Formats: sequence, C-alpha cells, structure tokens
Amino acid sequence: MNFLEERIEKEGIIREGNVLKVDSFLNHQMDIELFEQMGVEFKKRFEGKPINKILTIEASGIGIACIAARHFHAPVVFAKKSKSINIEGEMYVAEVESFTHKCKNHVIVSKKFLTPQDHVLIIDDFLANGCALQGLISIVHESGAALEGIGIAIEKGFQPGGRAIRNLGYPLESLAIIEEMDAKNGTITFRKQI
Amino acid sequence: MNFLEERIEKEGIIREGNVLKVDSFLNHQMDIELFEQMGVEFKKRFEGKPINKILTIEASGIGIACIAARHFHAPVVFAKKSKSINIEGEMYVAEVESFTHKCKNHVIVSKKFLTPQDHVLIIDDFLANGCALQGLISIVHESGAALEGIGIAIEKGFQPGGRAIRNLGYPLESLAIIEEMDAKNGTITFRKQI
Repeated sequence: MNFLEERIEKEGIIREGNVLKVDSFLNHQMDIELFEQMGVEFKKRFEGKPINKILTIEASGIGIACIAARHFHAPVVFAKKSKSINIEGEMYVAEVESFTHKCKNHVIVSKKFLTPQDHVLIIDDFLANGCALQGLISIVHESGAALEGIGIAIEKGFQPGGRAIRNLGYPLESLAIIEEMDAKNGTITFRKQI
Repeated sequence: MNFLEERIEKEGIIREGNVLKVDSFLNHQMDIELFEQMGVEFKKRFEGKPINKILTIEASGIGIACIAARHFHAPVVFAKKSKSINIEGEMYVAEVESFTHKCKNHVIVSKKFLTPQDHVLIIDDFLANGCALQGLISIVHESGAALEGIGIAIEKGFQPGGRAIRNLGYPLESLAIIEEMDAKNGTITFRKQI
C-alpha cells in the first residue's frame, strides 16, 4: 500500500451508498503534509511532460492542485461552479452533474487563462462517475490546449468514470484506486498499481 | 509598495461599483509563487503565535490558506457553503451574505475539526464588508478555539469590514489595503503600512 492508501484505510469511513468519507484529511480538513507527498508523486508520474498549467475545479480540488503546482512551477486555474459578477468576458462552459450534491452545475473557465499554447495537467480529489472530469476535459479541448495528464487522488474503481477515461486513451493517474468497499464490515480493497 | 501591492497595481482591473478584478493571479488563475510570498509574510506577521489550524472558506481562500499552511505546519479546514450529503453529524453554522454573488449562504464547519484545544489563524483572499469573515469568527467562538489571528490578502479599506474587526480588537493583518480606487482613470491608492 502507498501512503494515501494507508491513510484511507486508517481514517476513511465507509457509508452505505458507496460514500467514502475522507473529510478528516482530504476534503474538509486538509492535511498539507499529505498533499505535499501527493504533489511529489504527481510530479513523478508526469515527469518529462511540458506542463505549464494546472486545471482543477472548486472547491476540494483546489488545495491539492495548489500544493502540487509547486512541483511543476505552474499556476493553477480553478473552474468555477456558477457565474460570478466578477467574471466577465468570454468563458468556456461545461455542464457537470454532481454525484454528491445530486444536481447539475455549469462550470466555467475564463478564456484568458486557457489557450492553445497551454500544456495542462488536470488535478482533482475524487473520480467516481467522472462527470466533473469530463467537463474539465471538454473545456481543455475547447481551448485548444494540450492535455498532458490527469491526476486524481482517490478513484472509485467500481464506478465507471475511470474506465471510460482510460478507454479513451487519456493519461489518467489515480494515487489510490478503490476496487471494493464494504460499509458493513468497513473493509476497503485497493487495485494493485505497479 | 510591497510585492502584493505591486502586483495589484500591475494586473488588477478596476470596474465601476467598487469591483477589483484580480482573477489573473488571485482568485481564478492562482500564482502559486505569489502565494508562497504571501505565506512567508503571514508567518512573519503572526510569528510566535501557537497556531495549529488554518481556517478558510471555499473557494478562493483555499489556495492561499494551503500554501500558507506549509509555513505553520498546520492543517487547513475550509468552511463549506452548502450542506453536502458527505457531511454528517454535528456542525457549526453561520449565515454569510456575499457581496459578489448578492445572496445569503450558510457556511458550515464540522465540529470534529474545530475544538477548544485549537489555536486558529483565519485566512481569506478578500475583506470588504466583512460578512464572510464575521461568519468564520463566529464559528471559531462557537467552537471554543482561540482565535490567534486573521490574515487577508486584499482589504478594501474604504468598505466597513476591516475597521469593525479592528475596533473589536481582533488581530487583523491585510497584506494590501486599498484606500481608494478610481475606475475612470484606473488608479489605486494603498494605505501605508509599517
């Protein structure tokens, strides 16, 4: 097991309905030293790629993306979930369905911050059905930027998001992939990674 | 002028209605090397305080808080703006009015992550009317934690939020305080800081 799998096994709480609570270290309280290890690992997995921009989505992707960005010496752009009066001008828009919140959102990125010159690494905390990720990928394609990689903290391997993205040929790296989890006895099985 | 004031003067865009757009480096695209300088400066301004937790609010406070947290060796907790099915159990709740989005939100923090043993530094990107900050302060008080300081990137000094917080005796440090800004000729005057 790697450092993230160990932490999930130690502190993750499994609930009925395929809910994994990791709010003590990942997406409500955030363990910055763990994020630092994740940043190092993302850098290793995407070594040699000419990444000059990190793209993520609010809110819980931002912390991981910012700490990882230190290792790529790249700025972070986060997709926003609703139109703000402080964002004006031309925007890329994608529709995203949220598994957690059971609703549809538009996510937007200003066209100023993604261009055909950019080489993008997408980073997010969770991959389950993949709706948020599909929205981010479509925004990268619309911008004409090169998508160099996708780095995810925790993938629910038993949900279809990751498989679809891999089948499409995208370079997807998830630091922990959950094959099975059992709310009754609290066990988690991780997919073996090389 | 300090590094942040210089950056605001160089890249900030002033719009009618007291809107300052800093989305190229602060709250849409995020310049992580600038955040690193801000983290160093926050550490200096709160030197010697026994800070063991950073509290911020989604979304644009998270990046600054996470980078700053590296200098305090403390985890970050971010207040969430709506109830998620992934948050259960007891929560601290405050009502917050948003200047930008012109609406009221509830912000919530799980009681697990703020306790009377905590020594909290609040970090956020903007302080204008102070509604978000007031909500975060009330949550810290409700938790019984000690509020050791408040670190803000940009304060609109001509709006009442900062003055009220200082009058109440809170240790508030804003890295850039705008005294005046003029949308017509694009000029910004900063408050002199020692």
